[in-house]
Amino acid sequence: MKNCTAGIDIGGTNTLVGIVDEEGSCLSQSSLSTADYADPKEFVRELHREIEAQVGHIEGSLILEGIGIGAPNGNYYHGSIEFAPNLRWRGIVPLVDLMKQHYSIPVVLTNDANAAAMGEMIYGGAQGMRDFIVITLGTGLGSGIVVNGELVYGHDGFAGEIGHTIVDPHGRQCGCGRRGCLETYASASGIKRTVFELLSETTTPSILRSVSYADLTAVMVTDAAAQGDVIALEAFDMTGRILGLKLADTVAHTSPEAIFLFGGLAKAGEFIFQPTSRYMEMNMLNIFKNKVKLLPSGLTENAAVLGASALVKKELGK
Amino acid sequence: MKNCTAGIDIGGTNTLVGIVDEEGSCLSQSSLSTADYADPKEFVRELHREIEAQVGHIEGSLILEGIGIGAPNGNYYHGSIEFAPNLRWRGIVPLVDLMKQHYSIPVVLTNDANAAAMGEMIYGGAQGMRDFIVITLGTGLGSGIVVNGELVYGHDGFAGEIGHTIVDPHGRQCGCGRRGCLETYASASGIKRTVFELLSETTTPSILRSVSYADLTAVMVTDAAAQGDVIALEAFDMTGRILGLKLADTVAHTSPEAIFLFGGLAKAGEFIFQPTSRYMEMNMLNIFKNKVKLLPSGLTENAAVLGASALVKKELGK
Repeated sequence: MKNCTAGIDIGGTNTLVGIVDEEGSCLSQSSLSTADYADPKEFVRELHREIEAQVGHIEGSLILEGIGIGAPNGNYYHGSIEFAPNLRWRGIVPLVDLMKQHYSIPVVLTNDANAAAMGEMIYGGAQGMRDFIVITLGTGLGSGIVVNGELVYGHDGFAGEIGHTIVDPHGRQCGCGRRGCLETYASASGIKRTVFELLSETTTPSILRSVSYADLTAVMVTDAAAQGDVIALEAFDMTGRILGLKLADTVAHTSPEAIFLFGGLAKAGEFIFQPTSRYMEMNMLNIFKNKVKLLPSGLTENAAVLGASALVKKELGK
Repeated sequence: MKNCTAGIDIGGTNTLVGIVDEEGSCLSQSSLSTADYADPKEFVRELHREIEAQVGHIEGSLILEGIGIGAPNGNYYHGSIEFAPNLRWRGIVPLVDLMKQHYSIPVVLTNDANAAAMGEMIYGGAQGMRDFIVITLGTGLGSGIVVNGELVYGHDGFAGEIGHTIVDPHGRQCGCGRRGCLETYASASGIKRTVFELLSETTTPSILRSVSYADLTAVMVTDAAAQGDVIALEAFDMTGRILGLKLADTVAHTSPEAIFLFGGLAKAGEFIFQPTSRYMEMNMLNIFKNKVKLLPSGLTENAAVLGASALVKKELGK
């Protein structure tokens, strides 16, 4: 008999479902199309079918001890997804309660960035650290803050929204209805906007001048930077300048040992790490200078599923 | 026999020393002139004499169980005061070690804002709260952040420097050597600077036009505001706008149940609370709106000594 946990990462497009053993190996993983399910109940029925199918297919007898779920706008205290702009389901979805109709084992839910932080702590680069932060640079900017070895949920379960700290109250329009949030600059979509801002403001030649806004991706900006494209390099510099400045503010709050950059834009490597680190140090209060490590995630494969499974593993006290 | 703790609040000018009983009553309090002591060892000898004298003068037999110390740039992990710009002592002063030459009971040191937060939690308005922040608005802006019922010290013991988050990288010169830190705007000295900025930029009549920079105090700005002085009222509005914006960022980090404003400028009451609250709500992410209480400190008397004593009380597990 082998103990295992299930990790579920709910995204706007796809949901990843996997089974993780006690050593942190992902034994199996599959994907559902989140957007296909108009009714969350039907979605949960399918999740249940999928978990059972995976557990059934893995060799040897497995004991499923718990289920961890990372989801946009996931609330740890309520066990619900609340007003997630990128999901089809409106209002408050009591996901943990729906799962509990199928399972009597612990089911834990939080937002995807918190799950990533837990994955980093249990299986990744933050093992042994008690104070660190994970920043996910995807379509938006998510963050999971760990203090004294515990995720910071705040009094309402919604802590860790660094992507919605304000760079400029009159700045770029944000999906949250306000202006100038950090994620409108520092994210995969933020760097696209920066490229278009630079294309509009300068006459600098760039291979990106022939790409439409709809077609442009962060990977294309990285590829252009690798070819020495000045606009792409400037876009990374501006992204790092804004992200570094705001991360210096974040350090002044919780003084972490390390900040991990995770997700699509983090894959740009030195193009994003180098300017972010430089500007973070430049804006740091003296007592924090040259102390805080800016690191890539230590989770290379199955990170989302490992993160979600780590959530419940932590809850089980393992 | 009655158990008690000593609370010591070290300030640039004066140091307060008091004895606090288990119910949080301050049994006695006195003051030393910090600036008179060039040698920290001599200062600690005097502290020891003072504590012993107070314990001896209080009626009934007292058992001193521990000593809590709040000090500028106090580091909890190291038990030392490190590079405090407002103290005579240069470099690193191992204050806890020096105290241990006189005492074998627990001695705990942290910065003054953390001590204020602990005082609020043990004796003040944050009793029963697990997530809150105390902002001290004195000469500078200090902050003590509590998450899951514990002070946030960070990996190096220096967490909670919200006064040094950046409002404008090209803004006002700060004592820390950088520019545009929050405390250059939102503090007793910050509002003085704002008054002088407004006096320079406008021709609006004001009773503050006859006061020199050296003579102006935050109390005078409050008195002018109470008389309807337009410059004073605008200075409070600008202070609240900047503080409110940055507190919205802070909420996005740790999502506290309440933020307490403490210290000199907080005594301006509605003049500072009203604009700070309005601009904080205006800049808050939807999920946090109308949830976070902005409150005056619940500690009215002997707050600094109570805060320092609360530190060690918490340590003793009481």
